[in-house]
Amino acid sequence: MKFNPVDHPHRRYNPLSGDWILVSPHRAKRPWQGQVEKTANDIRPAHDPDCYLCPGNERITGDSNPDYTRPYVFANDFPALLTDTPDAAGESDLFRSSGARGEAKVICFSPDHSKTLPQLSVEEIRQVVDVWSEQVTELGSQYPWVQLFENKGAAMGCSNPHPHGQIWASSFLPNEARKEDDNQRQWLTDKNTNMLVEYARQESESGERTVVENDDWIAVVPYWAAWPFETLLLPKRHILRMPDLTDAERTTLADIIKRLTTKYDNLFQTSFPYSMGWHGAPTGDGSYLQENCEHWQLHAHFYPPLLRSATVRKFMVGFEMLAESQRDLTAEQAAERLRDLPETHYLNA
Amino acid sequence: MKFNPVDHPHRRYNPLSGDWILVSPHRAKRPWQGQVEKTANDIRPAHDPDCYLCPGNERITGDSNPDYTRPYVFANDFPALLTDTPDAAGESDLFRSSGARGEAKVICFSPDHSKTLPQLSVEEIRQVVDVWSEQVTELGSQYPWVQLFENKGAAMGCSNPHPHGQIWASSFLPNEARKEDDNQRQWLTDKNTNMLVEYARQESESGERTVVENDDWIAVVPYWAAWPFETLLLPKRHILRMPDLTDAERTTLADIIKRLTTKYDNLFQTSFPYSMGWHGAPTGDGSYLQENCEHWQLHAHFYPPLLRSATVRKFMVGFEMLAESQRDLTAEQAAERLRDLPETHYLNA
Ligand SMILES: O=P(O)(O)O[C@H]1O[C@H](CO)[C@@H](O)[C@H](O)[C@H]1O
Ligand SMILES: O=P(O)(O)O[C@H]1O[C@H](CO)[C@@H](O)[C@H](O)[C@H]1O
Repeated sequence: MKFNPVDHPHRRYNPLSGDWILVSPHRAKRPWQGQVEKTANDIRPAHDPDCYLCPGNERITGDSNPDYTRPYVFANDFPALLTDTPDAAGESDLFRSSGARGEAKVICFSPDHSKTLPQLSVEEIRQVVDVWSEQVTELGSQYPWVQLFENKGAAMGCSNPHPHGQIWASSFLPNEARKEDDNQRQWLTDKNTNMLVEYARQESESGERTVVENDDWIAVVPYWAAWPFETLLLPKRHILRMPDLTDAERTTLADIIKRLTTKYDNLFQTSFPYSMGWHGAPTGDGSYLQENCEHWQLHAHFYPPLLRSATVRKFMVGFEMLAESQRDLTAEQAAERLRDLPETHYLNA
Repeated sequence: MKFNPVDHPHRRYNPLSGDWILVSPHRAKRPWQGQVEKTANDIRPAHDPDCYLCPGNERITGDSNPDYTRPYVFANDFPALLTDTPDAAGESDLFRSSGARGEAKVICFSPDHSKTLPQLSVEEIRQVVDVWSEQVTELGSQYPWVQLFENKGAAMGCSNPHPHGQIWASSFLPNEARKEDDNQRQWLTDKNTNMLVEYARQESESGERTVVENDDWIAVVPYWAAWPFETLLLPKRHILRMPDLTDAERTTLADIIKRLTTKYDNLFQTSFPYSMGWHGAPTGDGSYLQENCEHWQLHAHFYPPLLRSATVRKFMVGFEMLAESQRDLTAEQAAERLRDLPETHYLNA
């Protein structure tokens, strides 16, 4: 029997995280009798008097939002990290702890409560890119890691549909950052190429896993994707951090984000839930900003949970939590489905 | 300011997985406006004619279940792993794959559709322990890893409330097994003690994180727990694999499982969802079964998603997926809450 990735279970290796993924493409035929997700109500007012993120409204702390007209950033009212925490005493080998300082902010992408990223114009998304970049510069001057991310949709723990993301800056390299730092560094040492620059080049050449591409950027379902419609968004040239983007690259980034998230919404004709976030070279005055970080390449991960429809998700439970992530369709199959979708949002079609 | 783990954010290190956890105990006061879970209907018939796991009923394949009266094991009708897959050709450094063979089985814990583990008697749970052990012996003679697990509740992707678990045996060590193998081995080399044997001893001595304990077993909220009410179930003596358990240890294991899962149900007076599973030393004829695996200690992980109530869960999204797991209460606080609960199931109280 000859191996065929569409019929035969196999594993794929993620060189960025160092983990393997179990691919079981024959399993897509399995019937589903489990939990179904609620679909989001796509029609919302442009301003909701009860939304604590809308311009002019009051937040839980009693502060009021200004009448903002562009992306608006404020300190998270319930931050997971604080600036002035004392150092933890690492107790012993088995009971090991360490201090953790940082800041958490919220970024409203738009004053318009009714919109999500794909429904904003390229110019409006470009404003978000500029604010992300400013935040990396500002917080990165102090903290080694600045995590920009968005939780979208109730299925991803997002409690407010107002278009917004979060920014958590930390005094330490979190696990995922540490793994990517180690693996990219080792790759450069071993192979004398930048892992993800080389990866983007090969993906652009083959096109097999490409979802959308423009002059400066490419979004692919990575060969080692764990989530059904996971994507990896990469610049085509070597770029360490978001503030290093040129003016043109910021606009083409806004363009590819709009096209990618539009395809996501079109897949199941629903406001597509996901967690997304950016990974760039570490920062921090006196540490990574002064060190050689040439092994890094800026990129964004999109982790969407939906598998079969607007209401049936992939559960990463049981075997996944205890042993290894498992997926039911190949990366190539997922990429083809996304690639073939229109780039006009279904609500405007 | 003096460091206080109940007020100050800090990180804790998991020596088994090698990951850190961000603890933000001050964040528990955050209001919740997001998704609420459906609660399970606790009252079910002892036999459901529409359940494909009940004795005598027909499965989707057309096979019929026997009229079983004890735990019943059968091959999963939609296995993620197949016995006869051809080897994948590892393509290149960036596109690396490997073959994956295995078997997937389902284990019905009881013929009674209306029960869950805490509602079975110690004798009935003991039968489950015996079957688990037999399966490790049988599948472990051929495969290096036999993952016993249970997904319980709709929130954990479980599509059928009939009490059941799964068994996936694989021709490879999955990621989590590999990490635990590496970290336990390194610990033994570096410190000349068995990590988890020593950990159980120290936890039993302090009692601070103990949920329930008997002569042979202890269940704790581990110092490095990621999920709000995560527990680690450990034997007190050094045991590599489930088949090595003595007769007495099987019965005390059934006892502690009943007590632990009863406390779980009592916490929010609901059938408490979780994924749980066993990790023991790897197996496989001609490989781990013949090698020195003294660095291993048998243990079970319970990963329950609920945080505040029967309907409000912890979402491991955004920062967690992209950076690091984060929790809102300390392990000690969680252990205390579980420890203080009655050991009589709320439905019988
Ligand atoms: O096989 P089941 O119970 O239908 O499926 C469930 O458990 C599996 C193993 O943890 C997961 O891969 C699936 O995502 C989940 O829905
Ligand atoms: O801060 P939020 O949006 O209320 O909370 C959400 O995102 C956080 C960061 O990913 C998670 O830790 C929470 O579990 C999730 O509910």
